[in-house]
This record gives sequence, C-alpha cells and structure tokens, in this order.
Amino acid sequence: MATDEFELIRRYFSDVGSDQSGSVRRTVGDDCAVISPPDNRDLVVSIDTMVEGVHFPADTSGDRVASRLFGAAFSDLAAMGATPAFFTLALTLPDNDPAWLQAFSVRLAELSRQYGVQLVGGDTTRGPLTLSIQVHGWTYPDKALLRSGACSGDRIFVTGTLGDSKGGLETLLKNIHGPQVPYLQHRFYTPEPRIDTALLIADYATAAIDISDGLLADLNHILVASNVGAMISPGELPISAELHQWVGEAQSREWALTGGEDFELCFTVPAKLEPKLGWALRNHSVGVTCIGQISAKPGILFSEGGRVWPVEPQGYNHFTNKHRV
Amino acid sequence: MATDEFELIRRYFSDVGSDQSGSVRRTVGDDCAVISPPDNRDLVVSIDTMVEGVHFPADTSGDRVASRLFGAAFSDLAAMGATPAFFTLALTLPDNDPAWLQAFSVRLAELSRQYGVQLVGGDTTRGPLTLSIQVHGWTYPDKALLRSGACSGDRIFVTGTLGDSKGGLETLLKNIHGPQVPYLQHRFYTPEPRIDTALLIADYATAAIDISDGLLADLNHILVASNVGAMISPGELPISAELHQWVGEAQSREWALTGGEDFELCFTVPAKLEPKLGWALRNHSVGVTCIGQISAKPGILFSEGGRVWPVEPQGYNHFTNKHRV
Repeated sequence: MATDEFELIRRYFSDVGSDQSGSVRRTVGDDCAVISPPDNRDLVVSIDTMVEGVHFPADTSGDRVASRLFGAAFSDLAAMGATPAFFTLALTLPDNDPAWLQAFSVRLAELSRQYGVQLVGGDTTRGPLTLSIQVHGWTYPDKALLRSGACSGDRIFVTGTLGDSKGGLETLLKNIHGPQVPYLQHRFYTPEPRIDTALLIADYATAAIDISDGLLADLNHILVASNVGAMISPGELPISAELHQWVGEAQSREWALTGGEDFELCFTVPAKLEPKLGWALRNHSVGVTCIGQISAKPGILFSEGGRVWPVEPQGYNHFTNKHRV
Repeated sequence: MATDEFELIRRYFSDVGSDQSGSVRRTVGDDCAVISPPDNRDLVVSIDTMVEGVHFPADTSGDRVASRLFGAAFSDLAAMGATPAFFTLALTLPDNDPAWLQAFSVRLAELSRQYGVQLVGGDTTRGPLTLSIQVHGWTYPDKALLRSGACSGDRIFVTGTLGDSKGGLETLLKNIHGPQVPYLQHRFYTPEPRIDTALLIADYATAAIDISDGLLADLNHILVASNVGAMISPGELPISAELHQWVGEAQSREWALTGGEDFELCFTVPAKLEPKLGWALRNHSVGVTCIGQISAKPGILFSEGGRVWPVEPQGYNHFTNKHRV
C-alpha cells in the first residue's frame, strides 16, 4: 500500500495519454507544466468538478468515475469547436485505495489515448472524494463557438439522444433492473464528448453549448447570450428506443427537456447553410436532429399539432440538490 | 440568500482582476474561456487543491482562505520564473453562505488586481469545502526555471524566512497567544508568491522550486531531478526574529528545514554569477540568503562548526496526515 504522495502520483499518473498537437514541453514532475502554443491558435480552457454523492453515487468504481469525469469535461471543448490537447487533474481522495486509483488511472489513460490528449499536471490531496479536471484545446483565432452568435431564423440542432443519462441515474437510484438498464446506465457513466461532431459543424454553427443542465436550461443560455428566442417542436426531440420503452412518451420527453448531463451538443446553424451541414455530416456516426428554430422574440415557445405555448427553462442546478445522489 | 448557481457565480466571480498580458479574449460565461497566447511565449500551468480541515482549519474566514489559496498557487508560477496572467477556480461549497463567499471573492479580487491576473472561468458545486485553482503564466520560450538544471558548485539560495508558516499553524492548533502570534499567523494565512523576486533571478538561476513540502524535501526534488547533492550550512538558515523569540534556536531551525508551506523560493545560481545576482537584487525588498552549495555526490550533508553529517530529506506529505488541522 503506497503512502507516499509523490510515489502514488508517479506510479499512476506520470504517463497518461499523449498530446497530438505536439505542444506539451514539460509535464508531471516540475512545479508547473510547460506548453508551447502552436502558431496562430487560440487556447480554450474549462475547469469542472465532480463530488462523490453529488455527481455520482458513493462507491462508484474508479473506471466509471474516470469515464464520467473525462466525458463531461471534454464535452466543454466540443461545445467550443476546439481540438482537445491536454488536461490537468486535482484529485482529493478519502483513502489511499490503490485498486480504485489503478482502475481510475487505467481508464483515464485509455480515454486520453483515444482522444489524443495528455495529462500534464495534477495535485493529490486527502479529503472527501472530489475530482477537478481542467481541459485545454486549440481553435483557429476567433473561431471558438460561443453561446452568443445565434440569429433569428437559425435552425436549432442537437446531437445523439436526450434524457438517457437521467434515465440511467433513475435506474441507479431506484435499483431498477430490466433490458434497457445497461444501455441507460452506460449513457450515465460514459458520456461521449462530441469532439468529432463539433469539428464537423464548426464552420456552419453560429452558437453552441453542451447539454449539462438540461436542454431547456442550456438552450436558454444560448438565447440569453444571443438576445433571441426559440420555437421548439417537442415531437422532434431525439429519444432513444430504450428510454421510450422503459418510461413511455411523456416521461422520456420531460427528461429529454430537463434531465441534464447528456453532454450532447445543442447548436444553431443559419437555414441557408443547412444543406452544407447535411453534406458535412454524411457518413457521420452520431445522429444530428433539427428540433426547432431561433426567433427574434426572447423566450421559448413549444409548437405541436398546430398549438403553440410558452415554457419556462428548467434544469439541473447543483444548489437545489435536485439531482443529489 | 442566493440559491441559483449561475446567479451566485455571476454575482461574486464575474469581474475578478484583469490580465496585464492582454491575452484573455473570453472569460466567465461561456463553456470555456478563450485566450490568445502572446507571440513567442510558453504557457506555464499548475493546479492546486485546498481542503477544509486538511490545508486550513474548519471555519477559516473567506478572506483568509482566499489569501492562502492565491499565495500557494501563484507561488508555483514564481518557481518557474513565469509572469502570472490568468486563473480558473473550482469551488465546492457545503452551504450557500453569501457572507463567506463575499469575503472570499473580495479578497480574491484584491489579490488579482495586485498581481495583474484575471479569473477567466470556474465551476461551483455542492459538497465538502474544497477549492481547486489553476494558475497560468507566460515565459519566454524554453526559459521556464526547472528543477533539473542545478550543477555542482552552484550556490543554493532561499527567499524570505523559513518556518514561520509552521509556527503560525502551531499557534492556531494549540490556541497560543503572544506578541509573535499575529506575525506568524499572518505568514500562515497570507503566503506571498515571490513573483517579483523570481523575475529578477530568472536570468541567473539554474533551478528553482517553491517551498511547500519543507526546505529539505523540496531541495531534494531539485537534487534528484538534477542528479546532484547539496552541502547546507544550517546556521545560515533565514529565521524570523518572531519565530526565534517564540520557540528558540533548535525548534525554529527544525521548522525551517521541514515545516513546509512557507512558499518561499529555493533556487540555485552558478558561483560566478553571484555578483550579478547581488546586483540584480539591489533595492529588492525580499531577503535572499545563501544557505549552501550544490555538490556532485547525491544526498544532503550539513556542515556546521567544522562538523559534516548526512541528513534525510523529510517534509510535508498529505497522505501521512502529519499536518492535518
């Protein structure tokens, strides 16, 4: 059992991933990491924290915590249309549990290789299980996808299916078993950052966000930042067969709108660029669905079967404890 | 009482500091911050975590936590000879306590202005009080001060005085009062990152580290990374009058060697550059003291009064709980 902090870091975190952009000069083992920014690129950074009992159930295995942390964090780079490059990790651990740490670091290394990113630095401290990760990526100058660029008439798209992560969490909290459960729990534990999709849409999108708080809440961030509104067709929401089979139409639609933590992308594209977007996404493995349109007047309207009504944005808010697990 | 996470972040953290390097493009309020790296600079990054009850006593005021977090984190940039530019903050809070948060953010903003750095992004979650900060700075290409450059014959220097922080912590843990206590507790709560000193010595130093684990442990990091040893004169250790008056020669010397968290710099300079170093430090307000010399043979020797003996590096290790408060 390792009790030395430096030995522990050295053993598990000294060789995690590699940076495809080739910008990393010095990594774990000095006071700071050193990076040589590529010429003519902007740096894009985001920090995220996950706390045991808040963002994932107590006693979640190390590999599942690694998947969830990695997917959620790099999803923020996807939302900016950035190419991931490197990350840092601050790990607060209640015990020195080599088996948990090894499972965590092995999964983290697998994902780092898969996405071509490198762990360049970290901090390990004693305390209640808390993980903070900062992710770093590169975009061309002034090409980062912001929340503030949506214009009236733009089409609103989302990637993948929505509500699955909330469904997976519910099956965990209520200890539910059934044929749909493995898929839904996989969606909860293993969010896939939509990096490839983001790089394909970046030339066409006017605004983008990743869905962490719930579609309505996150779309509302775009609307407020862009000073516009939206008309949504709830019948167009992409919902997985598994979620629909398990909880039916009404519940799956509600979770798709407000469940949160799907880490899919919501983005807007000018109507005239829709054909080019379709062409860019040919043969792409991740589904992209148009769910509505940006309007000039602030607020969100639903439109279905000839009826139009306003809705309030709602979503995940850590400080309401709504999703405390 | 604010209960909305976004409102809370907006209120307290939307306008903290400003970046003197002018590289920050987008800050708090999108999925990521966006930075345009200055031409011909390396980026230097470090992440640090502080946990209530481990790194500071429970019920420490917000302004003291801010000072300690800021000083400890930016000290890592000083150790690299980097110019500080911006930072991110991941804040895990047990309660939504507006008074604590306001005191924290006011002090953080003061220090950010003082050091010319900007808060560019963050995350706020519910949980046991834990703070992770990532600091970012710039150096000229390949000019970052590493641990690995010390050579036999180099002089070993430290800034300021050593052991005060450990003394301050002891007065807190044992509820001690006396004329020296305010100074010592100030040194514990308000470490000053030695940024100005670092920029003055950067052209002369061959290796540098900040003293977080204790002089012997941190000097040993330089020695191992550089594959050299050191001869130290313990009688030359800079010890404050306050610490000496309170605990005497033997105890203050032990704390200077192993106490940790002083966040002073330890650095090495070739003997022939010592005159130029002295000239560079003329009129500089922070004391710089030569405590020994790098030797070819690995290990640390003490030399005093004609006697020479080997010592083991010891220091702060979070996972031994030695300093748990």
